Amino acid sequence: MPKISEKGQSMPQSPIRKLVPFAEAAYKKGKIVYHLNIGQPDIKTPEIAMDAVRVHSLDILSYTRSEGSEEYRKKIAKYYAKNSIDVNHDDIIVTTGGSEALLFAFGSIMDSDDEIIIPEPFYANYNGFSIASDVKVVPVISKFEDNFALPEIAEFEKLITPKTKAILICNPGNPTGYLYSKEEIKKLAEIAVKHDLFIIADEVYREFVYDDKEFYSIMQEESLKEHAIMIDSVSKRYSMCGARIGYLVSRNKEVIATALKFAQARLSPPTLAQIASEAALDTPQSYFDDVIEEYVERRNVLIEELEKIDGVKVAKPQGAFYCIAELPINNADKFAQWLLEEFDVDGETVMVAPAAGFYSTNNVGQNQVRLAYVLNKASLVKAVAILGKALKVYRD
Amino acid sequence: MPKISEKGQSMPQSPIRKLVPFAEAAYKKGKIVYHLNIGQPDIKTPEIAMDAVRVHSLDILSYTRSEGSEEYRKKIAKYYAKNSIDVNHDDIIVTTGGSEALLFAFGSIMDSDDEIIIPEPFYANYNGFSIASDVKVVPVISKFEDNFALPEIAEFEKLITPKTKAILICNPGNPTGYLYSKEEIKKLAEIAVKHDLFIIADEVYREFVYDDKEFYSIMQEESLKEHAIMIDSVSKRYSMCGARIGYLVSRNKEVIATALKFAQARLSPPTLAQIASEAALDTPQSYFDDVIEEYVERRNVLIEELEKIDGVKVAKPQGAFYCIAELPINNADKFAQWLLEEFDVDGETVMVAPAAGFYSTNNVGQNQVRLAYVLNKASLVKAVAILGKALKVYRD
Repeated sequence: MPKISEKGQSMPQSPIRKLVPFAEAAYKKGKIVYHLNIGQPDIKTPEIAMDAVRVHSLDILSYTRSEGSEEYRKKIAKYYAKNSIDVNHDDIIVTTGGSEALLFAFGSIMDSDDEIIIPEPFYANYNGFSIASDVKVVPVISKFEDNFALPEIAEFEKLITPKTKAILICNPGNPTGYLYSKEEIKKLAEIAVKHDLFIIADEVYREFVYDDKEFYSIMQEESLKEHAIMIDSVSKRYSMCGARIGYLVSRNKEVIATALKFAQARLSPPTLAQIASEAALDTPQSYFDDVIEEYVERRNVLIEELEKIDGVKVAKPQGAFYCIAELPINNADKFAQWLLEEFDVDGETVMVAPAAGFYSTNNVGQNQVRLAYVLNKASLVKAVAILGKALKVYRD
Repeated sequence: MPKISEKGQSMPQSPIRKLVPFAEAAYKKGKIVYHLNIGQPDIKTPEIAMDAVRVHSLDILSYTRSEGSEEYRKKIAKYYAKNSIDVNHDDIIVTTGGSEALLFAFGSIMDSDDEIIIPEPFYANYNGFSIASDVKVVPVISKFEDNFALPEIAEFEKLITPKTKAILICNPGNPTGYLYSKEEIKKLAEIAVKHDLFIIADEVYREFVYDDKEFYSIMQEESLKEHAIMIDSVSKRYSMCGARIGYLVSRNKEVIATALKFAQARLSPPTLAQIASEAALDTPQSYFDDVIEEYVERRNVLIEELEKIDGVKVAKPQGAFYCIAELPINNADKFAQWLLEEFDVDGETVMVAPAAGFYSTNNVGQNQVRLAYVLNKASLVKAVAILGKALKVYRD
């Protein structure tokens, strides 16, 4: 029997996937599960986007240009201009989700065994993309106590080798909810320029910024003109995760020309989803205002309720819709499984994402969980109450 | 300035892409260009598929399962059953086009520097996927004189090394139109079993088989149960290239489990396109009957007209919608460019795909072009007439 690859064997499962069978068993028993574990927003997709697909007049569902239509990319460039990001449509490649943009970025700038530094905890699928691209993730730890602020420059510099090609950040962060300040982006720029590295910034949560903080993109940092590669996506912004439309954006012409070759090999991004996504760019500001207001309230409720529980600490997020909480337990993997398998309050339980899976370093974050606040406030209150009761009963 | 990767530098451009700027310049001059170069069918997408999207009632465009919904995969399994392929829905992963299915297959079974044998000429993007996956393509030549039949087993065996992990075929073939016989598939099976190799078969043109020939899938070959990985796509079958929906199919459980990890890292295939593609499975047989009848007539017209031209020979295709023709020239790249830049008949010219780009070996197929018969018969007659006049005028 022919063998599968080492690469395939080492592809990780996401920390949440492992729990899915236990969740499914819980459903079968009739349990209600509050999902604090997922990043699938419950917010409605803008009508304007969904309607654009309903009224399509295509006879043939044909390929688009590999980089997305010029018209669509020009509209995207306008969106960026409104967000203080000065790019031309030629600096944009439309991809199949942010996932594909990351794969194109990795392939364009790294060869086998090259290294990419990523502050941890980080979005778990970065591991998968790194393995798929034969690239080594070098984690630099960011701390719960600092709300997961950018590690010191010296910590990065300790890790830089001749094989280091890039630093990858997620801003605002999944799973941390941390929003990098302008000063932190400037620090990163300094390292990048000094050591000739690319900065890849996953800015898919750009619009989800709270407390009147201002978002500062790597694309606004002039010194990074040749160094910055931005990853973007319509998934969270317009609650269109299933569209699978993202963008790779860079003012480095060589990066774009190279990523385009990867894009051409796979022909084109999905056509129907581009129709919806192009229409979504006309979503009125009121939609975002409502959404942000809703998320701020959810975040506040979630943290308030969590902090009522003895022994629970929360790293306060200022963006995205996640936070990391420390629980008074030793092993969140086991706890999360126990919640699904053995615990309930009147037939209801919660599902959380153990945070250890977001760390690349072993044995870190074992007492942490990631909580997504993509449920309505009433459900969040109920879910945290269940979590509180569970923590009273649970013994490691 | 940070550097792009060697991988990125060696990503090839497709043989057609190079000609696009010349085509665009021709349009600007007001020339009409008959496209014999492309694989984008002009056939209408089944109404049933397009309507399914028009009437969607989604509030939120959310992720689907990474492997595609169970319901959709069960319907796909039924489609295969009707096509004498006995697979379960668990043997199927829905992908973003056949392209992604190939990438998942490559990643699941090959590591850096592993080798894959591919009969050439082959679909040019196999090169791109191989480079993206850090895998080496080892070509085995199939001959114009044999209509590009399967090379002898001995030719394959000469090329097998400890690094050889798979043989990749496209059946029916792009760019050759060649349909492998049951006997040829059995020969391949013999090599695969003897040397413990995977056989990846790109069967996206399965429905496009002519002259009452019978299509024999690698999935029908019982000895290949653990060896066969089938790549499929809705792109050509339902004229839905822009959907970007494909499948990876294998009865090797380890392959599916591994490919699923790649699928999970990128979250899910596009949701709207899955709605259209699931509905497309209910396309009435009459649609395919009409399409096949149309393609047979186009093929016959194309070949008849081509063979009227002095010095032109055609490898007769029995499937897909391509053929390779030998022209009385030395360098088809230059000829194709000349057709766009310098030649016209009353303001009209043709665009062809130089076949050298479909060979991995250098200096082979320089006098060959790939012609796609995705134009209506009247246009094909006109296009070949222009080609004939061009060949009279052209001097290398």
